[in-house]
Amino acid sequence: MEFSESEVIAELSKIFTRHDSRVLVGIGDDAAVITSPLQKSVITTDMAVEGVHFRREWSTPVEIGQKITAANLADVYAMGATPEHLVVAISLTGHESMAWIKELAHGIEMEARSCDVLVIGGDIVRGPIITISMTAIGQIDKPILRSGAKVGDQIVVSNLPGWSAAGLFLLRHNINVSALQPARCVERALAQFRAPSVQYSDAIALRSAHAMCDISDGLLIQAEQMASDTKFVLNSDLIRLHPDFADLTGLAAQVGADVWDWIAAGGEDHAFLATGVDIPGYVIGAVEQGSGVELQGVEKRPRGFTHFI
Amino acid sequence: MEFSESEVIAELSKIFTRHDSRVLVGIGDDAAVITSPLQKSVITTDMAVEGVHFRREWSTPVEIGQKITAANLADVYAMGATPEHLVVAISLTGHESMAWIKELAHGIEMEARSCDVLVIGGDIVRGPIITISMTAIGQIDKPILRSGAKVGDQIVVSNLPGWSAAGLFLLRHNINVSALQPARCVERALAQFRAPSVQYSDAIALRSAHAMCDISDGLLIQAEQMASDTKFVLNSDLIRLHPDFADLTGLAAQVGADVWDWIAAGGEDHAFLATGVDIPGYVIGAVEQGSGVELQGVEKRPRGFTHFI
Repeated sequence: MEFSESEVIAELSKIFTRHDSRVLVGIGDDAAVITSPLQKSVITTDMAVEGVHFRREWSTPVEIGQKITAANLADVYAMGATPEHLVVAISLTGHESMAWIKELAHGIEMEARSCDVLVIGGDIVRGPIITISMTAIGQIDKPILRSGAKVGDQIVVSNLPGWSAAGLFLLRHNINVSALQPARCVERALAQFRAPSVQYSDAIALRSAHAMCDISDGLLIQAEQMASDTKFVLNSDLIRLHPDFADLTGLAAQVGADVWDWIAAGGEDHAFLATGVDIPGYVIGAVEQGSGVELQGVEKRPRGFTHFI
Repeated sequence: MEFSESEVIAELSKIFTRHDSRVLVGIGDDAAVITSPLQKSVITTDMAVEGVHFRREWSTPVEIGQKITAANLADVYAMGATPEHLVVAISLTGHESMAWIKELAHGIEMEARSCDVLVIGGDIVRGPIITISMTAIGQIDKPILRSGAKVGDQIVVSNLPGWSAAGLFLLRHNINVSALQPARCVERALAQFRAPSVQYSDAIALRSAHAMCDISDGLLIQAEQMASDTKFVLNSDLIRLHPDFADLTGLAAQVGADVWDWIAAGGEDHAFLATGVDIPGYVIGAVEQGSGVELQGVEKRPRGFTHFI
């Protein structure tokens, strides 16, 4: 590497520093100091490892930065909270160009700025691979827990999950995407994998939900986590009604994939899964008495990709 | 690995979960929710990479956990703040035993508990090496900045730095430590490298300081960071007065090291460096008009180990 840690920090400070009354001490001291007017804070952390969560040959540094930031911010919104601050720790190999590092930072900043979130600190270290760890802090009034579902609730998704899993499938199987139709579906799948466009406003619209989480680990896994004291009955016929279902099914058919693997077991979409009464979103089922998750109308158990076995 | 992510999380939850009114939502949801009564929060993050910041052949998992936690907590105390919460993201290779992972968690918990700090969340992912990233959140009334030094201030250290660098030197050079005298100095150096015993109360006692930071990157580097608008004049004769100076010098002489490399350029001690008037600690110099750092009475410029070049 042609530059020192302090030079990297100086460049990143330029990208991240914004004047904002919510930051009392920003980048450059032992720690950052922020305001917490609501007296309740929400905090979440995510780590992304090169080769596991992203690959430099599959994604641009801007996309990598956006994706990790989106995952972190979606967790905050999924609590019914508003993210305000981010800290970012990163290990670099020493073989990255300053341009690559700055692009990564721009990706983080772009996604953060879309939610009016400030990057206020971090750590830069050296390691054999790139690892990015991010912690988001937000303000919260009333948390919406995963465990809040009530019998009789509708189960909704804010959008059809599965696009990110579809994109990963295309890249992993090295599929010649130019042969697939329509091109917009291919592009959407790849784009959602590389840098999901999370509709954070969907989570804000769901603040009256009884329970909520984001679909980072796949629909069935998240539903299982939410169905602690209740049974989540998901109806595949309802999911089929989603306006994008035909597009995703068509793509799956062309590449020999099972669309339910993508929809029900794919991860990293960051659509929001919620339960409640008269809440916005696509109704896909209902909360019943019992326990566990039932996906009606799908014979084969959907199989997903898991980061950790 | 013989166990799943959810099994690891279940084991770690047992280690970390404590009932405490400061935690409204703990491990297991999209994010944790905490109270922020002072309406000002402090936040800092640190990343440690296997082979760079720790080695499994040099340190036990308990020591690794303690060390990383101490580094993170020391940053919070160095701001004049009180840490309250930690989130921990970790990548595991899949070849660790559950016992190793639990020991690591116990090391984190032990150090956190010593400061009444709660581990409230985290992320576990898979990667080719172990990487640990930690974010501490605390409450703060009045921040003590690095930049607060005033001309005429005394410069104090809460303790003599250099022991951790000495321990690293012994391990790196594969020195036969049984030949060194006295044994207590060897043990102290190794112990301080493996898991520094940070005197957090020293930072609390320094709350009237004008400027403060912890000596994580070495005395001279930290002094340079604090001497933004002033000159830090360090007097080696004053440092020589420290009761441990003779011990550290004796150890350096036996292994052919320059003790000033350890004291002035060694890192990871997490003693506190502060400036002010009538503040507790060992006086090692004074703040003057000008800029930069002068170490009087040491001819050769001390050389340190840096994690990132």
